[in-house]
Amino acid sequence: MCRWLAYSGSPIALAELLYKPRHSLIDQSRHARMGVETTNGDGCGVGWYPDTEEAAEPAIFHATGPAWSDRNLLELSRCVRSPLFLAHIRASTGTAVQQSNCHPFRYGRWLWMHNGAIHDFPELKRDLALTVDPVLYPFIEGSTDSELMFYVALTLGLQEDAPRAVARMIGVVEAAGKKHGVPDLLQMTVAVSDGRRLWAFRYSTERHSRSLFFSTDVRTLRTLHPEIEALSHVSDGTRVVVSEPLGDLEGAWHEVPESSYGYVEDGHGELHPLTPVPA
Amino acid sequence: MCRWLAYSGSPIALAELLYKPRHSLIDQSRHARMGVETTNGDGCGVGWYPDTEEAAEPAIFHATGPAWSDRNLLELSRCVRSPLFLAHIRASTGTAVQQSNCHPFRYGRWLWMHNGAIHDFPELKRDLALTVDPVLYPFIEGSTDSELMFYVALTLGLQEDAPRAVARMIGVVEAAGKKHGVPDLLQMTVAVSDGRRLWAFRYSTERHSRSLFFSTDVRTLRTLHPEIEALSHVSDGTRVVVSEPLGDLEGAWHEVPESSYGYVEDGHGELHPLTPVPA
Amino acid sequence: MCRWLAYSGSPIALAELLYKPRHSLIDQSRHARMGVETTNGDGCGVGWYPDTEEAAEPAIFHATGPAWSDRNLLELSRCVRSPLFLAHIRASTGTAVQQSNCHPFRYGRWLWMHNGAIHDFPELKRDLALTVDPVLYPFIEGSTDSELMFYVALTLGLQEDAPRAVARMIGVVEAAGKKHGVPDLLQMTVAVSDGRRLWAFRYSTERHSRSLFFSTDVRTLRTLHPEIEALSHVSDGTRVVVSEPLGDLEGAWHEVPESSYGYVEDGHGELHPLTPVPA
Amino acid sequence: MCRWLAYSGSPIALAELLYKPRHSLIDQSRHARMGVETTNGDGCGVGWYPDTEEAAEPAIFHATGPAWSDRNLLELSRCVRSPLFLAHIRASTGTAVQQSNCHPFRYGRWLWMHNGAIHDFPELKRDLALTVDPVLYPFIEGSTDSELMFYVALTLGLQEDAPRAVARMIGVVEAAGKKHGVPDLLQMTVAVSDGRRLWAFRYSTERHSRSLFFSTDVRTLRTLHPEIEALSHVSDGTRVVVSEPLGDLEGAWHEVPESSYGYVEDGHGELHPLTPVPA
Repeated sequence: MCRWLAYSGSPIALAELLYKPRHSLIDQSRHARMGVETTNGDGCGVGWYPDTEEAAEPAIFHATGPAWSDRNLLELSRCVRSPLFLAHIRASTGTAVQQSNCHPFRYGRWLWMHNGAIHDFPELKRDLALTVDPVLYPFIEGSTDSELMFYVALTLGLQEDAPRAVARMIGVVEAAGKKHGVPDLLQMTVAVSDGRRLWAFRYSTERHSRSLFFSTDVRTLRTLHPEIEALSHVSDGTRVVVSEPLGDLEGAWHEVPESSYGYVEDGHGELHPLTPVPA
Repeated sequence: MCRWLAYSGSPIALAELLYKPRHSLIDQSRHARMGVETTNGDGCGVGWYPDTEEAAEPAIFHATGPAWSDRNLLELSRCVRSPLFLAHIRASTGTAVQQSNCHPFRYGRWLWMHNGAIHDFPELKRDLALTVDPVLYPFIEGSTDSELMFYVALTLGLQEDAPRAVARMIGVVEAAGKKHGVPDLLQMTVAVSDGRRLWAFRYSTERHSRSLFFSTDVRTLRTLHPEIEALSHVSDGTRVVVSEPLGDLEGAWHEVPESSYGYVEDGHGELHPLTPVPA
Repeated sequence: MCRWLAYSGSPIALAELLYKPRHSLIDQSRHARMGVETTNGDGCGVGWYPDTEEAAEPAIFHATGPAWSDRNLLELSRCVRSPLFLAHIRASTGTAVQQSNCHPFRYGRWLWMHNGAIHDFPELKRDLALTVDPVLYPFIEGSTDSELMFYVALTLGLQEDAPRAVARMIGVVEAAGKKHGVPDLLQMTVAVSDGRRLWAFRYSTERHSRSLFFSTDVRTLRTLHPEIEALSHVSDGTRVVVSEPLGDLEGAWHEVPESSYGYVEDGHGELHPLTPVPA
Repeated sequence: MCRWLAYSGSPIALAELLYKPRHSLIDQSRHARMGVETTNGDGCGVGWYPDTEEAAEPAIFHATGPAWSDRNLLELSRCVRSPLFLAHIRASTGTAVQQSNCHPFRYGRWLWMHNGAIHDFPELKRDLALTVDPVLYPFIEGSTDSELMFYVALTLGLQEDAPRAVARMIGVVEAAGKKHGVPDLLQMTVAVSDGRRLWAFRYSTERHSRSLFFSTDVRTLRTLHPEIEALSHVSDGTRVVVSEPLGDLEGAWHEVPESSYGYVEDGHGELHPLTPVPA
């Protein structure tokens, strides 16, 4: 169980969203309201694309301590401005607390983060690892289900067609679950980006998925969150996707429907159904 | 706000008390019930006296991560047996999360740990630091109010008469508070030991102190906590002092009264009133 | 490149060997003389079997910082006594600095530590991972070649016949190297124990292996190392195996021959040739 | 003993100087040539002023592990561009390895870093702490001599007249040394900045100070360091000050003379003698 936030829009300092909101991600690290656990203290991370003309690889920061006391995260969030960033606070479901298990994970220009779990992951791990392209395999650094899902999706074409690759990855994971007799196998909300496009997926085998919300109307957000100064300057197409709202719900936050995904590019957003592709 | 546990009795493995009880100290690191905060994730520590005939210095283990995910603490708690140990989980009231701010603190054969705070500590810190014996001053390693209270108490004779030194320390701290116009200055439950004797103090300027409980009757403890196997072997004089009970209250846990302290030595225990000695 | 030390004999405090010798393992963390690198600052670890009658699982301590500044390691080494322990300081050959990559690794009653490397490990990793018994696979926690060698050896019967399993593991690794066209594939000195027996292996594909020494004569050790007080009390069958001597060579330290292994049990020691079993 | 680097000039990515040079600061963390120790593995830090028109507080990053394996430092150095930054790798002279002891230290717009030591610091610490302005005292977070020197200098007017305040600080420290009978008291190279100006001081009581070098001629630097691409774009007034050169000496690096300081502002540099002001 984790919490995450993804931003796409006019460049802003990370701290505007990570620290300033009443119920910010940092606040959620100690006081999550909608999660299985109220505490998300098993590490944190942020990945951001630079605010430059030319295309560039994202940078990442990973820390093993709780987000609420990490001074480097605070410093960095104050000084780094980005038009597209992903932030994550972790509550381990069993795997080690170490930087290589912190989200977002990176491969080339791609970032990936996850909230949820593959049930009985230790039993399925080997089967899933075998499906990873041998060329990609050496890049797996940590021991989480989340990172392995990323590499399975990369193997299945994430860089060509992200939604289809995620749908196929779900199919592969669920097939492994069926083989091992694990019911209600997968729980996931996942954010993926290549620096230009942002996708946010919500899915679970039992069709009762972890919460996921997106903002559509920047004007309502501004009214609800006067404490986030940066919102007064951002373009109308700016979007935020979150595991749980940064304050009260009313008007500004919409739930991503069960078994669907959102897609944002250049201030334009879409919602689509998400149907697993059986392996 | 922190949580702590002190044990005096027949030698047992630390894990018996730190991990096995239903609402163990490790469980309290994520789900404290009686504290200001439910999370105590800003470091942890344990100090123990060896299970040997001859007198010896205590050993300490300090870690900056949350207790719930610290594997070294788990390993060590399983293999170390001790007749007298102090364990602490920290919720910082502002000072840095670092090993030198983890409890218990040690000076020679003495261990000290604290739950609570000196209000407006930054304002009073210099005045309090000046009261520390110049010979002791260089031994202060961290930046907490808790450690400074220890060194003030050492300066005022902790090693000769612990209860009187603590009462005098309170007087010195409250005098500094009065000088600086800080109301409701001090909140504290403190455990102190020299390896033979164990004291547990409960006090606050506003006379509304943080919770503190002690066990008296090992037989009731055994019945309430069948999951703590070691209790079946310990002597009847074994005592546990805790910020909050390790399970349900009924019968086994007694509250240390407001403004008083408990004292344990060789299976014998006493309760006394605690009256500050004005500076 | 790492340095390690293994001890088998009369129970002593770990600090006697880890800290007291002139050129102790802790000193080697900053000033190794015989290694490829003088600095071994990428984590450290110790695993020890308890000093008790009954058989018991070993305990482990892993830390990501350099050994020379780790206060917990110092505290623990002072208070823990053991008749058989393994200690390791790490110089990463590329994999992450994290506790799950620290040696010794543990599986049940077995401990394993390694100095050396599998060349081009990222290329071979998947092939080697596939050889691990699916039942053992989920226990792999880190990302090192060292841990994977352990699990390959476990798969090949380490618990039944340790020398043969290690010889077969070398065969499997070298076969994978041949397949991928990697010359001079393997460099290793490895220590393994089940708490009763201790094996120390020295091997490399190019037959030019990392240094490895063992002590035979406790009396000479006593004379050379008066600073290690504990040596005055230990039995004559006590043995120490080290990557490099704890002081000067003369008389006390013998080199484990190229492509061979030592074996110690109950104060009795043997040396045997080590011949890889082709896969 | 530490190593540090200070940069003032055209904005560049931190990595250009911290990672790219043959004998970069990161390389010096393992292989320092001119220091008392070859290893500087007790933490690292960087402080930088933002590359913006308006004046702004510097940001800082502090880590307790060795610089050579710190991935966050690498990520951050690649993406952060700054016209004025200070970087430091630490070799502790006894105080704890913790973030609050990492350089550079910050107070408001001011950054401070230090290589060297106050001999017998524990004995002098209290006397020096007492000279700190009570208003500044609560801002001291760590336990090093370096940070305390910063606060003594701030007390003595660093923000009004930096060279004079440092000269007076030396006087105060040496007076304390004389009182306690400590010979050869102070060793220091210090870098200070307010974001616009940069000072670099070299001094020791015994007049045999730690090494300190500065670059004057960017064209020579470019020729000597073709691997630092950014140098091809920086202005001619760009200056680098280092504990030891980033490669070979010839031509590009000049030693700061004994008992003197350099001063850089807007591409203009000066050298002045440094004479302690007796307390």
